[in-house]
Amino acid sequence: MIIIMKMQAKTPQIEAIIKRLEKENLQTNISSGEERTIIGVIGDHRQIDKGAMARMDGVDRVVPVLRPFKLASRDFQPEDTKISINGHVFGGNKVVIMAGPCSVESMEQMMETATHVKKAGASMLRGGAFKPRTSPYSFQGMGEEGLKIMADVRKKTDLYIVTEVMAPEQVDLVCKYADMLQIGTRNMQNYALLNAVGKTNKPILLKRGMMSTIEELLMSAEYIMSNGNHRVVLCERGIRTFEKYTRNTLDINAVPVLKELTHLPVVVDPSHATGKWTLVKAASKAAVAAGADGLIIEVHPNPAEAYSDGEQSLKPKRFAELMVEVERVAQAVGRSV
Amino acid sequence: MIIIMKMQAKTPQIEAIIKRLEKENLQTNISSGEERTIIGVIGDHRQIDKGAMARMDGVDRVVPVLRPFKLASRDFQPEDTKISINGHVFGGNKVVIMAGPCSVESMEQMMETATHVKKAGASMLRGGAFKPRTSPYSFQGMGEEGLKIMADVRKKTDLYIVTEVMAPEQVDLVCKYADMLQIGTRNMQNYALLNAVGKTNKPILLKRGMMSTIEELLMSAEYIMSNGNHRVVLCERGIRTFEKYTRNTLDINAVPVLKELTHLPVVVDPSHATGKWTLVKAASKAAVAAGADGLIIEVHPNPAEAYSDGEQSLKPKRFAELMVEVERVAQAVGRSV
Amino acid sequence: MIIIMKMQAKTPQIEAIIKRLEKENLQTNISSGEERTIIGVIGDHRQIDKGAMARMDGVDRVVPVLRPFKLASRDFQPEDTKISINGHVFGGNKVVIMAGPCSVESMEQMMETATHVKKAGASMLRGGAFKPRTSPYSFQGMGEEGLKIMADVRKKTDLYIVTEVMAPEQVDLVCKYADMLQIGTRNMQNYALLNAVGKTNKPILLKRGMMSTIEELLMSAEYIMSNGNHRVVLCERGIRTFEKYTRNTLDINAVPVLKELTHLPVVVDPSHATGKWTLVKAASKAAVAAGADGLIIEVHPNPAEAYSDGEQSLKPKRFAELMVEVERVAQAVGRSV
Amino acid sequence: MIIIMKMQAKTPQIEAIIKRLEKENLQTNISSGEERTIIGVIGDHRQIDKGAMARMDGVDRVVPVLRPFKLASRDFQPEDTKISINGHVFGGNKVVIMAGPCSVESMEQMMETATHVKKAGASMLRGGAFKPRTSPYSFQGMGEEGLKIMADVRKKTDLYIVTEVMAPEQVDLVCKYADMLQIGTRNMQNYALLNAVGKTNKPILLKRGMMSTIEELLMSAEYIMSNGNHRVVLCERGIRTFEKYTRNTLDINAVPVLKELTHLPVVVDPSHATGKWTLVKAASKAAVAAGADGLIIEVHPNPAEAYSDGEQSLKPKRFAELMVEVERVAQAVGRSV
Repeated sequence: MIIIMKMQAKTPQIEAIIKRLEKENLQTNISSGEERTIIGVIGDHRQIDKGAMARMDGVDRVVPVLRPFKLASRDFQPEDTKISINGHVFGGNKVVIMAGPCSVESMEQMMETATHVKKAGASMLRGGAFKPRTSPYSFQGMGEEGLKIMADVRKKTDLYIVTEVMAPEQVDLVCKYADMLQIGTRNMQNYALLNAVGKTNKPILLKRGMMSTIEELLMSAEYIMSNGNHRVVLCERGIRTFEKYTRNTLDINAVPVLKELTHLPVVVDPSHATGKWTLVKAASKAAVAAGADGLIIEVHPNPAEAYSDGEQSLKPKRFAELMVEVERVAQAVGRSV
Repeated sequence: MIIIMKMQAKTPQIEAIIKRLEKENLQTNISSGEERTIIGVIGDHRQIDKGAMARMDGVDRVVPVLRPFKLASRDFQPEDTKISINGHVFGGNKVVIMAGPCSVESMEQMMETATHVKKAGASMLRGGAFKPRTSPYSFQGMGEEGLKIMADVRKKTDLYIVTEVMAPEQVDLVCKYADMLQIGTRNMQNYALLNAVGKTNKPILLKRGMMSTIEELLMSAEYIMSNGNHRVVLCERGIRTFEKYTRNTLDINAVPVLKELTHLPVVVDPSHATGKWTLVKAASKAAVAAGADGLIIEVHPNPAEAYSDGEQSLKPKRFAELMVEVERVAQAVGRSV
Repeated sequence: MIIIMKMQAKTPQIEAIIKRLEKENLQTNISSGEERTIIGVIGDHRQIDKGAMARMDGVDRVVPVLRPFKLASRDFQPEDTKISINGHVFGGNKVVIMAGPCSVESMEQMMETATHVKKAGASMLRGGAFKPRTSPYSFQGMGEEGLKIMADVRKKTDLYIVTEVMAPEQVDLVCKYADMLQIGTRNMQNYALLNAVGKTNKPILLKRGMMSTIEELLMSAEYIMSNGNHRVVLCERGIRTFEKYTRNTLDINAVPVLKELTHLPVVVDPSHATGKWTLVKAASKAAVAAGADGLIIEVHPNPAEAYSDGEQSLKPKRFAELMVEVERVAQAVGRSV
Repeated sequence: MIIIMKMQAKTPQIEAIIKRLEKENLQTNISSGEERTIIGVIGDHRQIDKGAMARMDGVDRVVPVLRPFKLASRDFQPEDTKISINGHVFGGNKVVIMAGPCSVESMEQMMETATHVKKAGASMLRGGAFKPRTSPYSFQGMGEEGLKIMADVRKKTDLYIVTEVMAPEQVDLVCKYADMLQIGTRNMQNYALLNAVGKTNKPILLKRGMMSTIEELLMSAEYIMSNGNHRVVLCERGIRTFEKYTRNTLDINAVPVLKELTHLPVVVDPSHATGKWTLVKAASKAAVAAGADGLIIEVHPNPAEAYSDGEQSLKPKRFAELMVEVERVAQAVGRSV
């Protein structure tokens, strides 16, 4: 922590700060410039409320030096974390493709989708049984019935399942059926839920909040990891900006930034990040070119009849075409699909 | 819903859309302009996935006409909702002031704060027992112990209590102690939690998500109300923008906009909306001038020692000064404090 | 400037930085923490490219300490700047009201508007002769003809004129007619234009860019002032955010923030900041309550026939009502209108 | 244009709107739903102020149907525009690479950079002689001296030049030396400048405003084109969002979106879009994978001594590595570099 004093700050104000920090067993380094004094704080001060320090008399502002995450930080674990599900490894050389509909709607819909996406080369099946919808009047998902359908489809296709869990009390139920638990964008800072999934032994797909910074995403991973579960896959799924032509703005920079900051695998959701099926292929190729370890893509046998997210869902045929093109880009960056 | 076709759209594409809508018992009105055809959809189509319609061949985009909220809408209830707690009425002539620390830290801290804010004219006491913190390593709140402290303070001061509930499984516990349940900004779209508090008989203080639109705020109110609990107070607490000099950007426009769109009371949190105690007074006066029905303000006897939010907390003396000035503005707009 | 080194930074890297800074006659203060080394730079280094320093080996990031503005800073001039136009003083006790149509459309329109707004208590007349329009096909303003109309209206009403100048080569022409030059939101960082108006002796109304931070606004004021013209009035007119219900988001926090950072007067444009006439009154009262030194408001005798900005323009009758209510709020904060 | 009436709208209000539109020779189509009436407007109404219509009694909101751009629209010109400079074609199969320093600093710096980037495969040289800097105290560029240096370097290397022009009065001067004129992000809506470059016969590199929508970018292209100059290359260079880890957020979605909406070539500036040299390679590959027709990249022989943008500039060796990797991605999407 660096404390930058106001131009008019007085010596007793500076002394009060030093005293306060000494009380917390922290040393200080004082640097008096022509215009301002700067106090460097030495020691681990992650516990001190920066706001409280900023509130002391004579302080202009407080600049953090230490990154607030540790378990998720590449500073503390340089080598990549690898997470294996049914032999498919997130964080390895292969780009892992998860595909399927937004919502589980029926056994037929899931089997048809699964068959298609498996044939096209997908490694895992996605599908929502519990759906976070903006409106209480929209379809809320099939619940356990939907989970059972997915488990049946897994048996028949050997495609393992990633599905969203929305509340702590659903965690046990979803764990009975799912192979990977998804935390949705609206729940990225639902700390009760993060703590709950942190106590399971399932890999977690943690979606970035549409309103969350990269650092906040890593802090949410830190919540899960500090509960003992280190198998976290991060997912960039588009952020909310002033641009409204697309549903969200894919923050493609987040991929190489996360690769610098953390050892955890990073995947991209090009469906939500664009909101329009015509843009999904370009976004998928961009994600792989930028270094993504995987993609999660919405595919529906008949998007115009989908219960949700029809606009951004690919038909199976388009998905197959996408896979061919993504494979080429993966090879160009030294990877496979 | 209005469906705007592409310039190149063909007659069979238009016919397919009409047929699809008829299947849902919806009528259409076709308007063929010089460049494009537009299909107006007649009937209540809140249930149809707009994305699926947008996905049909030949469609350029889909424009919703009906607002997606009903229970919260002033179109359906023109008169203001009034919510009374201990004789203090949200949505009436008086501007209701809630004040207190970010976190409950001790009996002494709460009693001292409560005594001060009551004397200065506050109507309710705020304080957090369960704290949503970005970092798992930060103070997470005193839990039930904190709730008990607040209940004790209520007995001694007759200040009723608003406090945050973070998870569905905490709802019963918090209801035992609190007079009003707060849904925090990170939980505005935690639908399991909205459903849970919607089943209680407590008034709800629903904070706007820091990157949620006004319409999404009203949809979250709709979730609570559709569970039977119509006593919802909306809270503008600042939104996240590119401007980083302040912690958040107070969206002061939201106050008159909400007053137009909904009959629910609207309060403002000037502490989070600015993040700096020196700005809280100006923001409070602006909120009341713009028509807010209440304020929720962070006050701490010793902000430089606060466990959280020290930078934006007022000392009791400053809060008392603020109350005098806010009262004058309230009178200027025909209200009292 | 504070240079924060990477955790893995090596001694020669630190030495290279010190050497580089010494070449620029800057001293350093080294603080070695448990995890990282921090280099404090002593002396005025506003000229050094921070990016270049950030680029040196071993550097994690660079934090500026000195604010980049001087002439506009309250640190260097504590007392408020007062700017008088025709006896109306920006930055004094009175809240200065400028009102008029978006575009000058005809002599009749301007005279009718001017008569109304003067009667209601406005101090200055606004009107655009050169209009920055998003579309090349929209009305671009009457040009010099419009300026002449405003000058005529000034003669008849004694209302002085504020009008926009869009290009350096228009500055001389506009100066012939106008009493105050407006720099529009899209030109806040048009440095050729800032330099040009900085060489005139006219007061400048500098609108904040819809995409600009508070600090950038002050840096643009600094451009004008460094050319010799210190009579700059800053204008908050709404910023672009994700919220689209309103045309812009009025950043009401900017008013007290600017009052802290600068001695220059600060006014608010509630018309552009909301984009809807029904919200202008609430926004105006909020601005005055927050400490604004003035308001600039769009008024049109017949908004439904306006060539531009009809949606946000007030009819004269509504403006007169607004003036009565704004006056009350001004008095509540110890000012007059 | 579609006019959506309020729920409470009355027949005379609807009739007044129809009458007003008929006065403008526009026909209407009335659709009366259960809750609201909708008025479809038939005919070309690009000239009517939508705000004025929204201001009429009983109107809830106005939805545009026609896109506001014509010359730039793919609806009116389906085939790609190709722009050739010195045999390098924007909009063709090849991805055109422009590279060079942020600022021209000296003959030596430019020759060294040019030699390196040419050898690595760049097709054009970038460099700034007039620099838009946030601070009036920062280096403002070498002016004509810088242009002369670039022209000399062109003679020696056959690399053609793209450089920024900041004001209408500079256009003639810059045209004397440059092969392509750049409009910078802060000037995207400097309409006097757009009109001026629209009257030249030079190709224009139009950078997207850092907080401008895709539609506004196309409207600015429309300004240039409506002056007769149709040789416009659009440049996505990152937008301003809440995420501050990177200097800007590369809106990679804009690439395929622009490819849908317009026939103009689209290039990406990965240097400004990230602000950090370590991210430039990933962003470049993503841009090409998403379909960009070119890249403009900052390269400096010694970034730590650069007068500007040092943090985001690549050293020549890194640029050469980037070119090899970008070439592979280009081939994967069926193109060359």
